[in-house]
Amino acid sequence: MKKIAVLGSTGSIGLNTLDIVRRFPEKFKITSLSCKSSIDALVEQIIEFRPIIASVFEKKDAYELKSRLGNNTSTKIVFGDEGYKEAVSLKDVDVVVSAIVGTAGLRPTIEAIYANKEIALANKESLVAAGDIVINEAKKRNLKILPIDSEHSAIFQCLEGNQKKEVSKIFLTASGGPFRKKEISEFKNITPEQALNHPTWSMGAKISIDSATLMNKGLEIIEACVLFDLPPEKIEVVVHPQSIVHSMVGYVDGSIIAQLGKPDMREAILYSLSWPERFETNFGFPDFTMLDLNFEKPDFNKFRSLEFAFEAASIKKSMPCTMNAANEEAVYAFLKGKIRFDQIYDIVENVMKNHNVFSFSSIEDVFYADKQARSKALEYIANNH
Amino acid sequence: MKKIAVLGSTGSIGLNTLDIVRRFPEKFKITSLSCKSSIDALVEQIIEFRPIIASVFEKKDAYELKSRLGNNTSTKIVFGDEGYKEAVSLKDVDVVVSAIVGTAGLRPTIEAIYANKEIALANKESLVAAGDIVINEAKKRNLKILPIDSEHSAIFQCLEGNQKKEVSKIFLTASGGPFRKKEISEFKNITPEQALNHPTWSMGAKISIDSATLMNKGLEIIEACVLFDLPPEKIEVVVHPQSIVHSMVGYVDGSIIAQLGKPDMREAILYSLSWPERFETNFGFPDFTMLDLNFEKPDFNKFRSLEFAFEAASIKKSMPCTMNAANEEAVYAFLKGKIRFDQIYDIVENVMKNHNVFSFSSIEDVFYADKQARSKALEYIANNH
Repeated sequence: MKKIAVLGSTGSIGLNTLDIVRRFPEKFKITSLSCKSSIDALVEQIIEFRPIIASVFEKKDAYELKSRLGNNTSTKIVFGDEGYKEAVSLKDVDVVVSAIVGTAGLRPTIEAIYANKEIALANKESLVAAGDIVINEAKKRNLKILPIDSEHSAIFQCLEGNQKKEVSKIFLTASGGPFRKKEISEFKNITPEQALNHPTWSMGAKISIDSATLMNKGLEIIEACVLFDLPPEKIEVVVHPQSIVHSMVGYVDGSIIAQLGKPDMREAILYSLSWPERFETNFGFPDFTMLDLNFEKPDFNKFRSLEFAFEAASIKKSMPCTMNAANEEAVYAFLKGKIRFDQIYDIVENVMKNHNVFSFSSIEDVFYADKQARSKALEYIANNH
Repeated sequence: MKKIAVLGSTGSIGLNTLDIVRRFPEKFKITSLSCKSSIDALVEQIIEFRPIIASVFEKKDAYELKSRLGNNTSTKIVFGDEGYKEAVSLKDVDVVVSAIVGTAGLRPTIEAIYANKEIALANKESLVAAGDIVINEAKKRNLKILPIDSEHSAIFQCLEGNQKKEVSKIFLTASGGPFRKKEISEFKNITPEQALNHPTWSMGAKISIDSATLMNKGLEIIEACVLFDLPPEKIEVVVHPQSIVHSMVGYVDGSIIAQLGKPDMREAILYSLSWPERFETNFGFPDFTMLDLNFEKPDFNKFRSLEFAFEAASIKKSMPCTMNAANEEAVYAFLKGKIRFDQIYDIVENVMKNHNVFSFSSIEDVFYADKQARSKALEYIANNH
């Protein structure tokens, strides 16, 4: 029985994790739940899963949660950074599903590693912003980080039974997002509503915009470099609109191992929790009795985030963190109607251009770089008005 | 340094094996060469590779070979079944590439196993006709049989790092051959010339006809069941005209691992010899900057060999051997213009229908069943005139 803490239990990955836990009651047990502020959903989850602890971000939400639950449960309610820390450090936790969106996921993920927990990682920003620190802290403790991103889960699976030194290339697939065929001249007119409408994957708002700008793929490039200890030159982004091939690993002998499946994020979540075993599901296979899979190269001129990411991945140090933080602020500004879609690229580019790269010696350096990049980004956003 | 014996060195697989050996002179060495009767080619190979031993089928060819070589080489020349046996049993042989076409490859393959040699297997008829015997004799001696067929090499690679008990389905890909889109009513007019013209793979005559009838895929179904110890219900044939996806393994959790590459048989040959390592080549990857991969279901009404193979794979015992022998005679009769293309199916069907299934207790039983099926097939062929 694997005891699971979910960080971000009311988001898209969190809900799918709970669906998986429901399907395997003899294999998995939820002992800890955390979200930011979705009290309604969290109340229901606590009643259903009866975790030992539950955490929210703000004190007032913790109080509301307590009053809503009344005497229905013995779940301990905590809040804030200390609350998240307690929620992931619990003795009765084997693995932490890190599914908080954005840089907010970094601190609790690091706390989970400090507490010797295995990590099932959906929060790619942890690896982008603080890759070396996260990986080194996990290595020190001999902890596995299992990716939940379908692409990285695919790469992980394609590396199993093979030797890393024989890897020649990673083919990181990308659906291409909703604007694959849109002219670059129309980018300035894209509305948040259009950008939120992803063709193959159903996800949260931040990641949907990142998928539309292809910054999600940019973050994944950096995530792959960090997670699999590979230089960016070995990563090739391949647009594959059907999202059936989740990624591929090319070996020195010309052989490519690929992982395929339906575009259902539960598969990667389950694998991150069942590994090294595979548990039986009824998810089914893609239907090969009539299937066309297309591959094409991405347009780096339209989707400039790819270029930013490759640059950040080779500069390393504080640059990936800076790119990520600038992007996060730009995305939120776009969602609030403060900037145009195409300006997301401009803001990230400007913040990166004006950033003085430095090395991280601790996690506090990461937060400093993050904060600096955000305030620069907000400056550009403000000047836009 | 791996010392290699090639059985069938002048055929398509044999020539490609020698190409691989040429590319890795520090890894591989040819110590034994065998072919049926292609003296010209064998003379050149002996002069180039200077094997310890070389074997042909007929005594007269052995004499001609000796006189052609004169004092140019110290290679020992042998012939016949005893010659092949000596050629595979040589102390200075680590692995035998079994690439003789048809049932003729069975006896030397078994002899190689008796002599404790690893097997790189292209001769699928060995596994089809005498699967249990070949596998059991290899297991007894703790010998690996590494497949050279691109499909089985793919399956082997997709199983690496995974557990057999978690396999839910094998997706065995088939190019569909040159007559994928031909109407069944036109099958009776197909000429040997048309049938020899395979769209993606360049191969010998027998296997090209088998690819046109899809009996090659039928043999591969049985080969996969034997090699990976799987029931035929777990095998699904998927037509994939581009021959880029060489086969796939579907697991119980819905995840599919696929192996892809250019349609170049040297890749599978190399893997069978380099395993568990991968050696660097310049073969390159398929070009994903613009690639369409199509999948469709095979037409069992047109390509009846698939149905025959699934039937033989579930009946087992002497039935696969019978199917294979009847097919071999039918193919040779078609190549000689004695029967029509569509009659290949009729002959195999009739021989299978009239066969009394029995269990094999020794390799001699296999040869008996083989002979019986051939004489039945020849009877039907003769009656056709």
